[in-house]
Amino acid sequence: MSEEGAFIALMRTLATAPGARGLMDDAAVLDRPAGGLVLTHDMMVEGVHFLPGDPPESVAWKLCAVNMSDLAAKGATPLGALIGYGMAGDPGWNEGFARGLGEALGHFGAALLGGDTVRMPDGGPRTLGLTAIGAAPACGAPARSGARAGDLLFVTGTLGDAGAGLALLLGQADAPEEARARLIEAYRRPRPPVALGPALAPHVSAMADVSDGLLIDANRIAQASGLAIAIDLARTPLSPALVAARGEDAQGRLAAATAGDDYQLLFTARPQEEAAIRALAAARGIAVTAVGRCEAGPAGLTLTHAGAPVPLPGRLGYEHGAS
Amino acid sequence: MSEEGAFIALMRTLATAPGARGLMDDAAVLDRPAGGLVLTHDMMVEGVHFLPGDPPESVAWKLCAVNMSDLAAKGATPLGALIGYGMAGDPGWNEGFARGLGEALGHFGAALLGGDTVRMPDGGPRTLGLTAIGAAPACGAPARSGARAGDLLFVTGTLGDAGAGLALLLGQADAPEEARARLIEAYRRPRPPVALGPALAPHVSAMADVSDGLLIDANRIAQASGLAIAIDLARTPLSPALVAARGEDAQGRLAAATAGDDYQLLFTARPQEEAAIRALAAARGIAVTAVGRCEAGPAGLTLTHAGAPVPLPGRLGYEHGAS
Repeated sequence: MSEEGAFIALMRTLATAPGARGLMDDAAVLDRPAGGLVLTHDMMVEGVHFLPGDPPESVAWKLCAVNMSDLAAKGATPLGALIGYGMAGDPGWNEGFARGLGEALGHFGAALLGGDTVRMPDGGPRTLGLTAIGAAPACGAPARSGARAGDLLFVTGTLGDAGAGLALLLGQADAPEEARARLIEAYRRPRPPVALGPALAPHVSAMADVSDGLLIDANRIAQASGLAIAIDLARTPLSPALVAARGEDAQGRLAAATAGDDYQLLFTARPQEEAAIRALAAARGIAVTAVGRCEAGPAGLTLTHAGAPVPLPGRLGYEHGAS
Repeated sequence: MSEEGAFIALMRTLATAPGARGLMDDAAVLDRPAGGLVLTHDMMVEGVHFLPGDPPESVAWKLCAVNMSDLAAKGATPLGALIGYGMAGDPGWNEGFARGLGEALGHFGAALLGGDTVRMPDGGPRTLGLTAIGAAPACGAPARSGARAGDLLFVTGTLGDAGAGLALLLGQADAPEEARARLIEAYRRPRPPVALGPALAPHVSAMADVSDGLLIDANRIAQASGLAIAIDLARTPLSPALVAARGEDAQGRLAAATAGDDYQLLFTARPQEEAAIRALAAARGIAVTAVGRCEAGPAGLTLTHAGAPVPLPGRLGYEHGAS
């Protein structure tokens, strides 16, 4: 069997939903959805978005997670995925990828519906794409543009772990052994809070995911909503592993707030929603931290650290082409 | 502005549907659809699925057309598309691609809803993906598996033009000048009959598109439906350009029946549906030709040419990884 045929056979073992039609048809079918849908497509290219040495299982996990994170940011519940797989001539890698994809799709509750498998030219980088389809929340998908003056800015989980993990893998930093393992895991296997997104949707005024860095993603909300967001760096939530590796001074916090690949939820809400939001997050074992406040004024960010102004860094985060 | 930023700005001029949210959000939103949806994702890699010398406008057209062809084969009406764009450092190429994409999406009636733009590593091939979303027909999306003994096998348009065009571009064949231009155009700018697919859906028992070759795609219907399909090569519809370039003897017809990239509709129907099918196609100016018949028997193909048996070629068409 050809490498492509072997990979498609692996995909068929995953594509058990009726709408996938066993990957034997031209396209997938999604029965009449109960409400609106949310759709997203993110790509990952070897050597650009993942390292040639990253295990294929974790590459598949991450490809799935980054797309599910976009769904969660719109309050959507995962339904299915289509995969675009540009392979590079290593059946063992393909098998690891298929294992990881099955694990991730199961974890996030998304059915494999279809896709396409192609062979990259000799020496070409593995190029992966995933389209995720989710059911929009009944209240409508929150936009980036809904924040209002007086709203609080919240973020889930902790920030900067993935960025620190990448720096460790690139040999740009060092860390104690246990912290190192946790930070690399955060880089390779992000765990966006997909169940919390739909629960939060009715309580938020704007929501996005932190994929390129807290500051750049908060600035996008500020620009889309046409208001100022004041962030207190001292409140950015840091993991024990990150503190062990980098400390928690203003410089370490600024690094955490401009690092990419967090895949946490970033949202604004009226102060009177805070108790409900904290209860929803606590019920799912997810930390939520208020890191800033929306104010009338020119659209953009202001930064402080425990009351003292901090100049905005020239680079707010990872600039890439997601849309 | 970065190359990625410039390309996204071009995409924003196309993404005017409300659900695209101006490509400013994490994901696209599709309002509650009236019925079921059909979803497909096909990739194209430079040097594999298109030639480095192909004009970017036509590459964009083809990327769109191949996905719309899958929708048409399921009787679906195009709604929208998400684009995955792996760029290779040539702003002029990006601009041509954006122009071609706008033209194609307009032609096929699909809204640009979102996607992702990434930079390929230096020297990496342009890698493109498109996810197409369509509205399923009220009768349900026809499958490959619904053919029954006694059904006729029909194909739209003409066969083999695109394959002959590719052979001309690769310098593997020659043709008179006017035929050459038409065959290359068929390769670069396929025109799947997207409006006919939904109209045919209630009248067919099985439907697929001819993307890899008449024989291989007919064999997939035979296998999925568990029956024999007898094809009369003498009936395969050939364009005047192909006849001028290749003649119309059995060998030329076999080449046309095993060439890829036709993007025509291939379907089976009860003989009593033939009049209705011909009327629907004629009203849209599309040729429909009966090329075979479904029979009880071991699943597979039998070939004749004007009554004489023809052995099945070892290669029925282009084997790739679409699923």
